[in-house]
Amino acid sequence: MNSKNKHQLNPRISADCVVFGFDFSQLKVLLIEREQVEGFDISLSLPGDLIFEDEDLDMAANRILNELTGLNDIFLEQVGAFGNPDRLSKASDKAWLKAVRQKPEERVVTIAYYSLVNMNNYQPQASSFAKTACWIPVHEISELAFDHYTIFQVALKKLKDKIKTQPIGFNLLPEKFTLSQLHKLYEVILGRDLDKRNFRRKMLKLKIVESLDEKQEGVPHKPSQFFKFNEENYTQLIQNGYDNFGF
Amino acid sequence: MNSKNKHQLNPRISADCVVFGFDFSQLKVLLIEREQVEGFDISLSLPGDLIFEDEDLDMAANRILNELTGLNDIFLEQVGAFGNPDRLSKASDKAWLKAVRQKPEERVVTIAYYSLVNMNNYQPQASSFAKTACWIPVHEISELAFDHYTIFQVALKKLKDKIKTQPIGFNLLPEKFTLSQLHKLYEVILGRDLDKRNFRRKMLKLKIVESLDEKQEGVPHKPSQFFKFNEENYTQLIQNGYDNFGF
Repeated sequence: MNSKNKHQLNPRISADCVVFGFDFSQLKVLLIEREQVEGFDISLSLPGDLIFEDEDLDMAANRILNELTGLNDIFLEQVGAFGNPDRLSKASDKAWLKAVRQKPEERVVTIAYYSLVNMNNYQPQASSFAKTACWIPVHEISELAFDHYTIFQVALKKLKDKIKTQPIGFNLLPEKFTLSQLHKLYEVILGRDLDKRNFRRKMLKLKIVESLDEKQEGVPHKPSQFFKFNEENYTQLIQNGYDNFGF
Repeated sequence: MNSKNKHQLNPRISADCVVFGFDFSQLKVLLIEREQVEGFDISLSLPGDLIFEDEDLDMAANRILNELTGLNDIFLEQVGAFGNPDRLSKASDKAWLKAVRQKPEERVVTIAYYSLVNMNNYQPQASSFAKTACWIPVHEISELAFDHYTIFQVALKKLKDKIKTQPIGFNLLPEKFTLSQLHKLYEVILGRDLDKRNFRRKMLKLKIVESLDEKQEGVPHKPSQFFKFNEENYTQLIQNGYDNFGF
């Protein structure tokens, strides 16, 4: 690495993040509003920016997400690279790039990441060129800047596939959760009903959740038992060759 | 036809391909020998090169693979982007880049692909900067140029995961195959024994293979029935929500 490259922007490579959250009823994605450019409406986009010359792709995704939304130290995994030569060619995107980038005409290939956060724990804090950062329900997302809608769709597909074989969904929940909340999370991500009793039985039989000596408080129904994720048992299960939760 | 004269190279983004083949007993990867640079041994690498400014990533991977190995029109799927800032810093790699690239110092992020081919149908034809192209058994691969060994490992992991949920393995076989060959393919990719009778029963029950009115000829054992992949039944299965073959 050449020292003159330290913290210089790489004009041709960016990182974009699809951050998923779950508010106990809906799956949401964290989007930012870019500052308005004359003649164009404000557009929503994924948090993303150019990487630095001296940073790894994963590091770049973490830094950029932190700069734009305040999020830090969260589960982030690569979705893939998106490099259609026309991906920056919408008029509104070109106008915006012209206002903020040193080389607005450069072709940029973006490396997309997806992330799962416990949104009940986190207040979005927009900064840098993000005017606001907000949680939008997945089914309300229709148009985004650049090719971000395509990236969002691919990331959602990845989440759906992954939750069947890995317990990544726990990243979307608080440390303590009820089995109803976990059940709802799986239904919302997979987009279909799951038999509640079978679901509970499966989770308990696999021993990847364990009950806590604690119940919900101040709820308008019979308080439910709290559970937590048992990572040790999960790791053991995987080491023994188990790799499908059968949803 | 030298298309390189017509298109400009993007000096910062490349595509590399992990091409898997199956010779009915071992899983192999197609590697190329780069031309030798003074003072360094010939090194093996994945087929890969810089992309053109005006081509999509998938198109680039196809073109590059074709230029270096003669392969054309095959199953190719993205593995992901690899962008460690030090990925090109081995002395032998630097010497080679200096000999062949216009901007050998440039940081390059590579987009990796994996591919499955019926190697029994294909004679590697090295060209461009590939001196030779050869099939190397997966367990004999230890050191490769750049970060290609890491890329190979990630691609192999992806193949192992994917074969459990999608019938991509058929791309590695001739159109007509025996159930023993299919069974061996799964064992070799997953790296463990699978009960032969259960395997056959499962494949036949799911109806994703269908028997042909044809048997092997000139084999030193009782000739086996030939089968072919039934894509229509597979598609139907997936549409009905089936997504795990339980291996």
